[in-house]
Amino acid sequence: MKNKADAYQKAIERALEKYLPLPDQKVLHASVIDAMRYSLLCGGKRIRPMLTLAFCELCGGDPEQALPFACAVEMVHTYSLIHDDMPCMDNDDMRRGKPANHKVYGEDMALLAGDGLLTKAFETVLSAEIDPLRVIQGAQILAECAGAEGMVGGQCIDLRTGDGDHSLQTLQMMDMGKTVALISAACRMGCTAAGAVQEQLQAAEKYASGIGMAFQIRDDVLDVLGDAGKLGKNTGADCKQEKVNYVTLLGPQRAQILVESYTAEALEALQNFSGDTAFLKELARTLAGRET
Amino acid sequence: MKNKADAYQKAIERALEKYLPLPDQKVLHASVIDAMRYSLLCGGKRIRPMLTLAFCELCGGDPEQALPFACAVEMVHTYSLIHDDMPCMDNDDMRRGKPANHKVYGEDMALLAGDGLLTKAFETVLSAEIDPLRVIQGAQILAECAGAEGMVGGQCIDLRTGDGDHSLQTLQMMDMGKTVALISAACRMGCTAAGAVQEQLQAAEKYASGIGMAFQIRDDVLDVLGDAGKLGKNTGADCKQEKVNYVTLLGPQRAQILVESYTAEALEALQNFSGDTAFLKELARTLAGRET
Repeated sequence: MKNKADAYQKAIERALEKYLPLPDQKVLHASVIDAMRYSLLCGGKRIRPMLTLAFCELCGGDPEQALPFACAVEMVHTYSLIHDDMPCMDNDDMRRGKPANHKVYGEDMALLAGDGLLTKAFETVLSAEIDPLRVIQGAQILAECAGAEGMVGGQCIDLRTGDGDHSLQTLQMMDMGKTVALISAACRMGCTAAGAVQEQLQAAEKYASGIGMAFQIRDDVLDVLGDAGKLGKNTGADCKQEKVNYVTLLGPQRAQILVESYTAEALEALQNFSGDTAFLKELARTLAGRET
Repeated sequence: MKNKADAYQKAIERALEKYLPLPDQKVLHASVIDAMRYSLLCGGKRIRPMLTLAFCELCGGDPEQALPFACAVEMVHTYSLIHDDMPCMDNDDMRRGKPANHKVYGEDMALLAGDGLLTKAFETVLSAEIDPLRVIQGAQILAECAGAEGMVGGQCIDLRTGDGDHSLQTLQMMDMGKTVALISAACRMGCTAAGAVQEQLQAAEKYASGIGMAFQIRDDVLDVLGDAGKLGKNTGADCKQEKVNYVTLLGPQRAQILVESYTAEALEALQNFSGDTAFLKELARTLAGRET
């Protein structure tokens, strides 16, 4: 797993660097390029783009050809973090162990950097050198999962849960949008790049729901029990903002049991594939017990 | 011209309504849908999507088939206005005669509504039922023109012109990004939908530069001489923010002469088309003398 993850990550870092404009202080729009590069090239875990490459390979495709899809998903993820950290949203100063984008470049430039990365994500997905119908399908999956019926919708629910709706169902709807949608896009876009059949896309979706929910609930557990230094961001943020999450609703032990149960569902979904699922199995297990 | 504009506008309004989710207070993400609908369906002039339809028709295509392209451009335009009006950007309270998005829905929801519209723009362009290669090319044009090398780059220059660079050249670079890029996308995407040849795309680009620059400079003239009531937004905004524009650099008379000269360039570009250019000619002339 470690070797495969290293290989995927190296390919992803190289490709992300390639798709972004180089820093160039002579151009008049240098600041927005700098701000985009700052957040995208800061060494995240690259889980989503790894999922894209892994599912492409699992479905018999060449992961190299899925790099535009993989990088597009990471760009969408990064833009959402930049906008999410802004003062009018979650107002977080730290991200991935470094000052948030708006703390370095100002709120105006952070807003534009997010807009620029979201746009660049589509430019990148469209640059894939594969069957045009697969390009369109991949870009459609990304748009649907990132938009108001997916990630943006989840963030909307997040902002409005302060309005008194503290049910587990609302929390799940929120996380299906905020977290699962983009992970689902990552997995399904990998399948799409390889020309997978409908059954494979559905199994990938099921795997994504499992690890996505597990990932989010583990996030809530770490927000209470985790180490701010290791996480590279402030902990207790939800508590401070009096936000409801799985831990405040269920307590940390029962929340972690839910993590394990969703992870088991993800592992089960992998049985629908005939290829080597070792990497994706290990990734699901690692996420369930991650400390950062 | 009036009849054609009416027909185009009706088709555009119908299509915009169709591409957006219906308002539904039962869904948990109702607010972001409402906020997206508020700004997109408020009756703008729809100049950009009309350009897409007109160029499609001029190149022998069926404008009906170009509606996804046209609406996508209008969505990008609208998202940029929402983000641009936010307090961390231009901090404008009024837009198109109504309170700006963030004044109605709050800054957080305005940010998400903009993100949602930008994403929906790509979902929409990808839904076009034409040759897949044309779909990809159209979406690529949109991404390139809307991104950091286009519109977002222009807005970055706008934010940074406060840093002391008051040259005409910088102003032109800014407007090429802020205004011309998306108008160029609108025109070229119309050509693309119709399967136009390279020469037609280049002529459309030249027309777009002409009317785009004329449009922007006329905007600056109206910001000084215009009627806030007619415009539906506050005038004197650039003055108040001590921003440089064509009028502060050249004075209103010389600025208007530049409007006429760019308009003449646009009209010249239309000579490269064999079809009926009456609508596009009239549009260029109208924009040069518009009061709103």
